[in-house]
Formats: sequence, C-alpha cells, structure tokens
Amino acid sequence: MSMRFKLAFIGFGVVGQGLTEILLEKKDMLAEKYDFHYVVVAVSDIMKGSVYDENGLNMGEILSLVKADKKLDEYPSGMKDMDSLATIKDTNADTIIEVTFTDVKTGEPALTHIKAALNAGKNVVSTNKGPVVKQVMDLLKLAEKNNVFYGFEGVVLAGTPVLNLAEYTLAGNKITGFKGILNGTTNYILTRMEEGMSYDDALKKAQELGYAEADPTGDVEGLDALGKVVILSNVVLGKNIGWKDVERKGIAGITIEDVEQAKAEGMRWKLIGSAEIQKDGSLKAKVWPQKLPLSDPLAGVNEAINALTFDTDELGPVTVVGPGAGRRETGFSLLIDLLNMNRKLSE
Amino acid sequence: MSMRFKLAFIGFGVVGQGLTEILLEKKDMLAEKYDFHYVVVAVSDIMKGSVYDENGLNMGEILSLVKADKKLDEYPSGMKDMDSLATIKDTNADTIIEVTFTDVKTGEPALTHIKAALNAGKNVVSTNKGPVVKQVMDLLKLAEKNNVFYGFEGVVLAGTPVLNLAEYTLAGNKITGFKGILNGTTNYILTRMEEGMSYDDALKKAQELGYAEADPTGDVEGLDALGKVVILSNVVLGKNIGWKDVERKGIAGITIEDVEQAKAEGMRWKLIGSAEIQKDGSLKAKVWPQKLPLSDPLAGVNEAINALTFDTDELGPVTVVGPGAGRRETGFSLLIDLLNMNRKLSE
Repeated sequence: MSMRFKLAFIGFGVVGQGLTEILLEKKDMLAEKYDFHYVVVAVSDIMKGSVYDENGLNMGEILSLVKADKKLDEYPSGMKDMDSLATIKDTNADTIIEVTFTDVKTGEPALTHIKAALNAGKNVVSTNKGPVVKQVMDLLKLAEKNNVFYGFEGVVLAGTPVLNLAEYTLAGNKITGFKGILNGTTNYILTRMEEGMSYDDALKKAQELGYAEADPTGDVEGLDALGKVVILSNVVLGKNIGWKDVERKGIAGITIEDVEQAKAEGMRWKLIGSAEIQKDGSLKAKVWPQKLPLSDPLAGVNEAINALTFDTDELGPVTVVGPGAGRRETGFSLLIDLLNMNRKLSE
Repeated sequence: MSMRFKLAFIGFGVVGQGLTEILLEKKDMLAEKYDFHYVVVAVSDIMKGSVYDENGLNMGEILSLVKADKKLDEYPSGMKDMDSLATIKDTNADTIIEVTFTDVKTGEPALTHIKAALNAGKNVVSTNKGPVVKQVMDLLKLAEKNNVFYGFEGVVLAGTPVLNLAEYTLAGNKITGFKGILNGTTNYILTRMEEGMSYDDALKKAQELGYAEADPTGDVEGLDALGKVVILSNVVLGKNIGWKDVERKGIAGITIEDVEQAKAEGMRWKLIGSAEIQKDGSLKAKVWPQKLPLSDPLAGVNEAINALTFDTDELGPVTVVGPGAGRRETGFSLLIDLLNMNRKLSE
C-alpha cells in the first residue's frame, strides 16, 4: 500500500509556485509512473497569509489567488492565520516544503523551520542554501534520528540533479573531487565578454535579464559558488568544512584583454569552483577564475548554464551539464526530492 | 534482512574479469554503504572451461588462473564441465552475469542465455548490446513476468550511467529526444583530424591504440552508434524501432579540408546519434556527421570520450559526459546494474 503524502508549503514565492504547477500538471503521471500520491494541506507565507485544511486544498485556486495578488485569506474555507511554526507543528502535514525567503549567511528563518519540522517527525524538502551550508551534517543526523527525510537537491544546480547523480547514478564509485561552473550569472558575463563586450556592459546586461541582483557581489565575487563548494565538499566528499576553508577570487578583475589573450591561446576563462581530497586526506577547495583549454568539457559550457565534473575512481571524470537556476527548474528540484523520499520511505 | 546474491558468470573475458576485480576490491564498501552482499558460485566460459561450487568460489584464485592462461579445471574443487545453459539452469545461482562474446547482429549466444535465465526465474545483468537492440521490450516483459531483474546499463556508454540517469536522476521529466557522441573511436579520429592528421593516419592510430578493430566498419560507418540510438529510442523514449528505422552516414567521407573549413567557421565535426519525438508522435532517428558550433556542449567533448544530451520538459537539455568504453569501465557498468537490482529487490 503506497503512502499519500500530506504536504505543507512554508513560503510560497516563485519556487513554491513553480513546484505547485508541476505537481498539478503531472499529478496523474506521478501516481502512475512513480506511485507518488499527495495532497497539499497547508500554505503559509509571511506576505501572502496562510490557509490550512486537513482534507486538502484546491491548489489551482490557491495559485489563482496568488497570481491575482490576493491574500490566502480569500480562500473560501480552511483555517487562516497560522504562522510558519504553527503550520509546521500543529497541522496534519507530514512533509514540509521549506521555500521561504532566507538569508544565506544566517540560514534564517529556514534553519529554524527545518529543525522544527525534523524534530516534529516531519519530512523536509527545501531549496534554501543557508541551512545546508551552515550545518548539513547536523540536519541529516536529526532527520535520521527522527526517521524522516531531508532533501535539498536544489541548493547546488537547481533542478540539474547533481546530488542525486552522486548518490545514485555514480553509486559504487569513490568520488575524490569535483570542479564545476557553479554560478550562471558569472558564466553569462564571461560568455558576453568572449563576444567582445566589456565586463561592465556584460554585468549590466545580466542585471537587465534578471540573472544578477542590483548588488551583484554575491555572484561576481564568487560567494554563491563558494557556498556550493562547501555543500558539495560536505555532502559528496564527506568532509566538514565551512566558508573560511575555501580560497576565493571572483571575476571582477578579468578584463576584455585577458579574455582576448586567452582566446588567442585557444583557452577560455571560466569561474571554477573545485575541491580535491589530497593524499594526506585534507581538502583543497577553491573558487577561482581559470583559463581552460577548449578541449575541457567545461570550456564548452556557455551562457547561464552550469556544469559539474566529478572525479571518480572507476570512471575517471564524469560531467553533467544543465540549468543552474530558474523558477520552474528550481521548483522541479523539489519534485526530485519528493520522488526520492517516496522511494526511500517505501523501501 | 538483506539478501546475499549468488552470482554466476557466463563468459569470463576482460569485462567479467574487470567486474571481478571491482567486486573483490570493494567487497566491504559494497556491504557497508549499499547493503550489497554476494558470493560467486559459478564461472562458465567457452574457452576457459567452467567451475561450480554451490558454497562459493575463491574469485582471487579464479582470476589468478585465468591471468596465467590456465583452464578453470585447475581450480582445486567444485564441479567442472558444466556448459553455459547448465550453469544457468542447474546451479543455485540466482543472478546471471552474461558477458559472453556475442554477435551484435544476431544477439547470440547472449540472447539464448538471457532468455533461459529469465525463464528460470534468475536475474540477469549483461553488457551485450545485441539482445537489447533486437528485443529489449520482450526481455523486459519476460523479466517482469518472472519477477526478476534484467539490467544492461553498459550497452550504451559502458560505465557512464546514462540509462540510470534517465530512469532515476531525471525522474519526473518527460524526455522527448536525445543527441550524443555515442562512439569513442570516431570521436578519437575526428579529434586527431582537428589537429591536422589525415583520416587514414588517424584511423591507423586508433587501431594501434586498440580503439578500432582491424575491420573498422562498425565504428566508422556509424553502425555501433546506430545500435545505441535504437536502444535509447526504445528504452528511454518508449518507442519500438529497429536498425532500419535509423538514417545513417559514417565519417569515412570527411576530409581534412572539411575539418579545416569547419574550424575557420568556429565549428567542429562530430558524429552525432540522435532521435526526437515529432509532433505527430513519430520518431526521427539518425546517425550523421554534424558541424556543431563550439558553444554546443557536445563540441567540447574530444578524444575517445562519449556524451549524451537528453531533451527534457522541465530542465531543457541535460548532458552527461564520460567514458564510453574500457575494460574496467564496462565491468563497472555491471556493478551499477547489481546495485540497482539490490535496491529494487529489497524495496
């Protein structure tokens, strides 16, 4: 007998809405092909309000309300005004989808939400990076202790399933290192510079397209990529490192002359996040602009696309290339986690 | 309580020996990390002889015998002289590792072995392409009917786990097409031609390195890649096509002038195997040399490396790059299948 999961959304911005669209459109397929059954019982968002019905909400209607900029209070039935923690603790939800707007440095409020959910014996899937960077091993232990699932596939390359790949698809290999293009914004800027655009113009273009924030520091100084190096080092390589253990240099110092010279040498600049287990067992981790020969698979990855190469003992380097951002792509990462959870919990 | 699989090797050439090395070296890790437990009870090879011991063979000793070019009859105990079919049917093995030397066109003798094993209620893992190209859907149905597992990860890109990726890691996506560099020999030849070598010299070099056979037709005329297009179309896209449904052109007609001209245009020749579901539901499948812009992730895949891009509805194109051949890499593909089997059968 398969389970029917009772889901609650904590936070309901673009990522949560993206997942909701996918869940609605693919409901029949998910049931037939993956034996995955669900009902959404609660949505709680600090701006949009909250609604809870233990028998399930009509998520088409919820989406319509939100897209019309209305509050969830206008939903015709159910309990209103439950805040995030009440929704996590005091509803019949068994699985919390944590997609709040969260400070990546402190990890809050996601960290508090995730701990509360795991302590309450509820599964968690979340796209928030902060909690994973700060204390992934503690959270995984807490999940194990409570016999529940904690999934966070989306924190590295959005819906491009790199954590899943390392765990399942490369099973049986020993993974000893990785290197990758882990930030789409900087890769977009470097691609435009290859075509002759200046750094400043390329950055402006990235901001126009919504790839870069008004303050682009997190991307161009390599902080976003650094967080992903920390996550991959801890989750995939089994280390226990923090922000300060990664050497970092961004792309702001790269000039159009640097790019032209690399081109003349048959090379291409990329911002590479990497980590490698050394012979003495220590880890060398960094985020640094590198000139790659065009024969490197990562050199051919352009625009806002991301890529990650795992060094494996049996297969040598194995690379995956895919999107690293996007509303629906990030929403989809949560579905990867939900299907993974369904598989594990029905074992 | 986890199972302890009883394995029998049918065929014991380089691929079977490669897997054996991995199984021996990783025995403890496989038990601890993946709860995978095994014993090898039989090895039967048409040239090397056969040996069966229901309590298990010392595979280190078997490897030593074979590497010293001795017959399996010299193994100090066990039953000798059981042929392939007797080993499949009349031993206590529950899982058959089918790695015989097989004609890719007829699929024999692997096809007969696989059917016999599935009909006897035994799991099968095999790197033989022929049976998969010829009748994969029938074999999968037969496995399902007998409640056993049939795995063949190695038939497309050796140990680069493309079938596993499509089934697990991209779960939840609809895959509508693929394109890839599916043959390492031709990619090696094209890479040398990029450097100015003639087709004939590059082919000779590939033969020296053991990438190409004395008769290179299967590789350079695109027949090997075609078989993989058939397999991916049927297994991943859910179609039911055969050899004749794929348009084909090899690389023998590509001259150094063609390569130079492409280079001047910022392009690169690759032999691409592809299939795409059309709007009317039909399939357009082909193997054809294509000039790719250097911005295409497949253009950056050089030497004997393979790559495959899946077109997905949620993530757009997702590409995996890895080895497509090799003794140990192909042996490793069987371990991927065995771990997959272990996961499925313990669910």
